[in-house]
Amino acid sequence: MASQFGTKVKVSIFGESHGAAIGVVIDGLPAGEAVDLDTLARFMARRAPGQGAHTTSRREADQVQVLAGLTGGMTNGAPFAAVIENINTRSGDYQGLMDTPRPGHADYTAYVKYGGHNDIRGGGHFSGRLTAPLCIAGGIALQILARRGVQIGAHIASIHGVCDAPLDFANPDLDALSRAAARPLATISEDAGVRMLAEIEKARESQDSVGGVIECVAAGLPAGLGAPMADGVENRIAAAVLGIPAVRGIEFGAGFAAAGMTGSEHNDPFIMENGRVRTATNRHGGVLGGITSGMPLVFRAAVKPTPSIAREQDTVSLVSGTPAKLAVHGRHDPCIVPRAVPCVEAATAITLLDLWEEGV
Amino acid sequence: MASQFGTKVKVSIFGESHGAAIGVVIDGLPAGEAVDLDTLARFMARRAPGQGAHTTSRREADQVQVLAGLTGGMTNGAPFAAVIENINTRSGDYQGLMDTPRPGHADYTAYVKYGGHNDIRGGGHFSGRLTAPLCIAGGIALQILARRGVQIGAHIASIHGVCDAPLDFANPDLDALSRAAARPLATISEDAGVRMLAEIEKARESQDSVGGVIECVAAGLPAGLGAPMADGVENRIAAAVLGIPAVRGIEFGAGFAAAGMTGSEHNDPFIMENGRVRTATNRHGGVLGGITSGMPLVFRAAVKPTPSIAREQDTVSLVSGTPAKLAVHGRHDPCIVPRAVPCVEAATAITLLDLWEEGV
Amino acid sequence: MASQFGTKVKVSIFGESHGAAIGVVIDGLPAGEAVDLDTLARFMARRAPGQGAHTTSRREADQVQVLAGLTGGMTNGAPFAAVIENINTRSGDYQGLMDTPRPGHADYTAYVKYGGHNDIRGGGHFSGRLTAPLCIAGGIALQILARRGVQIGAHIASIHGVCDAPLDFANPDLDALSRAAARPLATISEDAGVRMLAEIEKARESQDSVGGVIECVAAGLPAGLGAPMADGVENRIAAAVLGIPAVRGIEFGAGFAAAGMTGSEHNDPFIMENGRVRTATNRHGGVLGGITSGMPLVFRAAVKPTPSIAREQDTVSLVSGTPAKLAVHGRHDPCIVPRAVPCVEAATAITLLDLWEEGV
Amino acid sequence: MASQFGTKVKVSIFGESHGAAIGVVIDGLPAGEAVDLDTLARFMARRAPGQGAHTTSRREADQVQVLAGLTGGMTNGAPFAAVIENINTRSGDYQGLMDTPRPGHADYTAYVKYGGHNDIRGGGHFSGRLTAPLCIAGGIALQILARRGVQIGAHIASIHGVCDAPLDFANPDLDALSRAAARPLATISEDAGVRMLAEIEKARESQDSVGGVIECVAAGLPAGLGAPMADGVENRIAAAVLGIPAVRGIEFGAGFAAAGMTGSEHNDPFIMENGRVRTATNRHGGVLGGITSGMPLVFRAAVKPTPSIAREQDTVSLVSGTPAKLAVHGRHDPCIVPRAVPCVEAATAITLLDLWEEGV
Repeated sequence: MASQFGTKVKVSIFGESHGAAIGVVIDGLPAGEAVDLDTLARFMARRAPGQGAHTTSRREADQVQVLAGLTGGMTNGAPFAAVIENINTRSGDYQGLMDTPRPGHADYTAYVKYGGHNDIRGGGHFSGRLTAPLCIAGGIALQILARRGVQIGAHIASIHGVCDAPLDFANPDLDALSRAAARPLATISEDAGVRMLAEIEKARESQDSVGGVIECVAAGLPAGLGAPMADGVENRIAAAVLGIPAVRGIEFGAGFAAAGMTGSEHNDPFIMENGRVRTATNRHGGVLGGITSGMPLVFRAAVKPTPSIAREQDTVSLVSGTPAKLAVHGRHDPCIVPRAVPCVEAATAITLLDLWEEGV
Repeated sequence: MASQFGTKVKVSIFGESHGAAIGVVIDGLPAGEAVDLDTLARFMARRAPGQGAHTTSRREADQVQVLAGLTGGMTNGAPFAAVIENINTRSGDYQGLMDTPRPGHADYTAYVKYGGHNDIRGGGHFSGRLTAPLCIAGGIALQILARRGVQIGAHIASIHGVCDAPLDFANPDLDALSRAAARPLATISEDAGVRMLAEIEKARESQDSVGGVIECVAAGLPAGLGAPMADGVENRIAAAVLGIPAVRGIEFGAGFAAAGMTGSEHNDPFIMENGRVRTATNRHGGVLGGITSGMPLVFRAAVKPTPSIAREQDTVSLVSGTPAKLAVHGRHDPCIVPRAVPCVEAATAITLLDLWEEGV
Repeated sequence: MASQFGTKVKVSIFGESHGAAIGVVIDGLPAGEAVDLDTLARFMARRAPGQGAHTTSRREADQVQVLAGLTGGMTNGAPFAAVIENINTRSGDYQGLMDTPRPGHADYTAYVKYGGHNDIRGGGHFSGRLTAPLCIAGGIALQILARRGVQIGAHIASIHGVCDAPLDFANPDLDALSRAAARPLATISEDAGVRMLAEIEKARESQDSVGGVIECVAAGLPAGLGAPMADGVENRIAAAVLGIPAVRGIEFGAGFAAAGMTGSEHNDPFIMENGRVRTATNRHGGVLGGITSGMPLVFRAAVKPTPSIAREQDTVSLVSGTPAKLAVHGRHDPCIVPRAVPCVEAATAITLLDLWEEGV
Repeated sequence: MASQFGTKVKVSIFGESHGAAIGVVIDGLPAGEAVDLDTLARFMARRAPGQGAHTTSRREADQVQVLAGLTGGMTNGAPFAAVIENINTRSGDYQGLMDTPRPGHADYTAYVKYGGHNDIRGGGHFSGRLTAPLCIAGGIALQILARRGVQIGAHIASIHGVCDAPLDFANPDLDALSRAAARPLATISEDAGVRMLAEIEKARESQDSVGGVIECVAAGLPAGLGAPMADGVENRIAAAVLGIPAVRGIEFGAGFAAAGMTGSEHNDPFIMENGRVRTATNRHGGVLGGITSGMPLVFRAAVKPTPSIAREQDTVSLVSGTPAKLAVHGRHDPCIVPRAVPCVEAATAITLLDLWEEGV
């Protein structure tokens, strides 16, 4: 299992949903960077469970305990380490899952890979709970990048077909994204958020779940970050974002829509603006040849509907090799898109800081 | 610049479009694997330029010279190395590009990153020509994987909105994919291929270009390959496939469509078949929690329209800082999707072999 | 700062000497391996401070708290994480060190590298205390390797010129090494240990310190582990062992003595023994061409005298740029060789397990 | 097999002694660095075979053909690639070695690891000939480092007990090292060189071989390069230098001698000199806590006697499992220390450039 990533800023995430604690080690943070723990806590709160009707009823304070790496509130050059204790665990909910794997979950694949030794409680290390340490790392990266003029923000582009107001890729309204972050659902349009909540509520009532799309922007990046082929900004971002459970696809700039365009429709003309080269439009999403162009980085990630649903589903008994029925009880979000928004921002921030520090 | 990738099977690609040669080193191939150079040549031929009206008129034999790593036709445990000499170069075509960057190309971003030291001729190291060494590595990986029961095939799912016949994700017709590979365009439906060629021809005539979507399948994979988070199969495949120039997005299984589904629609029920666990449907695309489920791996990649178009475009002069006009002459494919099909197969094969050898 | 290492079994060490806690994350341990925490505690105890006249008077229980990675006493495939709380810290001892760097310590180099942001208390992340998490990782690796038939043991070959009894490289007496591990100093000859203790006591009385050499053996390794060049067993072992603070050199088999030999003296003849290929002698130290030969792996590491000495030394004031005097008070071992013995075993075990799991 | 190394500046070496060609790819060189191929050729010539009585009679022009990575004589940001064709191969010399492995060589371990698929001719990928591509990479790194004020030089400290004049670690005479590089043997004392040559000649006459020690200095390094633990300068240098065939040990600064010293003897006092912090002596060899101190980096590497000797040796037949006799004919150096000197410089230069570019 490989929950370490990064080249210069190396993140190592650990923990199981119902284990003693979850946490993160970050090796390679630049020294002398202030880390404001209150700002971090506010960022973490956006991901925390138990915030509304659309989220799991599991309550976790998600208090971040810093163990190492800060001296006087600043990074000291040594690895940063922090843990979150797991408190509100109800493992009884998960008995029997080792035998009857939940559709859409990693129960079966983990069983095969780890020979049945994996921690099945709450999904163990596969749990969405492991995005909390990701958000610790991302929250710190966001603070460092902000001081370098980089602002990262994401919104819910759609949930089960209900769409948010569109973003102008060439001149994204960052204030609108900030306001979105403060809403119950991170939408630019308040009205869209209300309609999405209704969609989620409808799914919950029918013992079902819904998916959606998250759109993320990083503005203020210098031109020249990244490299062609393996170290392209897209490759790195994709590798990080697809590590968030439930993400099923990612597209940059015009993305899949580009496949239906002509070159003359898709190419972004270069222009001069205030003595600086930029493009008039931003269908390239801020990356050309794997390297940032100085235009906003824009991408979208598809999030599948929560696989845990109370409705009865078909599965098999691994022990007896016969068909079985399963209704997932536990405590689950009928839609994980809202809580995945800060996770996408976090994965993006970590990746960009890594590329920046690496000088790639 | 980082054109090395892989953890156990490490690929290092080098060369510039108009330099002396392009090539690849592969470190970590298992020893004792037969490599049939004729089979490799046939695979390479699917990517080679100069095959029809829809491709560049540049002709390159793309003769693979093996320098190291084979003894008696088998891998000998030492790094494999091969080169392809560049013969048919016409660098005069590219003069002036350092000053007036081509829209949609890496000219500007490379200029910024490498301080103007990059080889601009034919796009230098950013050229699609660098997918030839990728196909050498991929062609070898395909031969090794085939002996392990893994078959990888891709087809053109669409070009500029013209769609191929759909694949059954749970039971993909691999023979249909083999037949597709032998056609002028790699489509399952011959008729769709004819209509796509017409689309491409129309683009060429209007001095424009078109994009498309490639769908790829890897069947016969064992359950248990991959890992959660950073080493998920999706993350690795995405990082490799997004390294192919012009790929703008990737989605696994139901992909972006999953965002519009409910959990009960999206979850694939587990079933027993011939004493083996599988899923009745395959919306998960063969990967759950980053780990292969034993079902076919299925993904789609979006390819943008060729940015090089003969039509006049707006750009800027980097030297004078003033607006400029540019018509890209050179020799270019009005649609690179057809030649990108084997590249997608190659990137997939390398990644899967790497994961397999790594034991991840 | 990079305190992460390993390719398949990836170790990430964190903490500062006087911070909240020190700890380790191990990613990539094979699943289903029993980890006996009592055995681990006994191994840790060999490194723990406060054991005798020759060690620091700092007392730390070094209680290992496992946070993740074990289910029912077995590795569960997820990252293992454990912490040790720092209790007995007396940071006042270290005031002023930021201005007047201690000779032989990393105070000055860390100051330059981290711009004065590093945690100076007790050496911060540079402290020998950070070998405790190394020993957690190593102790687990030792348990796993033992089940595969590999036994790792080290002894103190010399302290300040006083030598232990020699080992037979071709047929090392592993029982003698086990007995050594149980002695106050890990020597094969009890008498040598007594004389070494006297050497250490003499150093302590004269407010000075002494160094020594540690010799380590890994028996039971299969032939075929490792690879030429960068992934040679020697390269990997050296990189790990030189990461232990105070190690200044490493040599394999005959080592530096080989430089004074002829080929006919140094080459080890191959012989058959019980139907198995081995060598009659073992001057090659168990590695040929970077690959294990099946003979015992043997190497020696040189450990410098503890740089912290109570005697007054010359240094400079970084603030005023003028000469200064310094006497290091704090609590320090007059000889760190004894406590470094399990650290060398730990570094060796981690490296060998990594190579094994990696299949290199 | 893993012949790739480096983190930011990644070197990938390929080739077999008697294959078509040997070569190197370097990914991550900074762009805009002039590479003088004549200077490189002169550096390569110091390693080339066939230079005197003490070297193999194999003659190779070792003409470096650059395939990629240079534009107008400067690095262009893309991977650098170069090959050397193998011309003067006499593979007949090596028949039978697959059955009767040569003592002291990797024949047996490679046979086990690669299941007999390895290229046995001339040692295949294990041949000392593979240090030629290492020297290409090192020669380029030396040129880049020289422009940053870093000078790297090595000399033969001893051969079979005959010692060169000592170096002053705190103020090494770099001119003396330059003069040494131009001598038949790279010694500071011409007389020592003459006596060493006599030692080598004596070995050759008795169908034997001799080993020696190489001492290397890197002066002009800034303080602050490297990191504690895994990324210490010592760890990185050791990993690279131990990758040179026949190196059996490495020590930094006082090295193994430090084991016999007291702390007061070994610690280097800090002093101010021309407003700059340095140490009065340099027993620490320029590295404290894994980080450069600004003092010259000094280390020594032990090189074993050439294992190929014409004298008859005992071995076994792998096929029949019976004892066998072997006399190695082929063409071999009775002492490889002289030709290993530039290899040590090369490995050092590559490692330091990698650390520098990485910002570690």
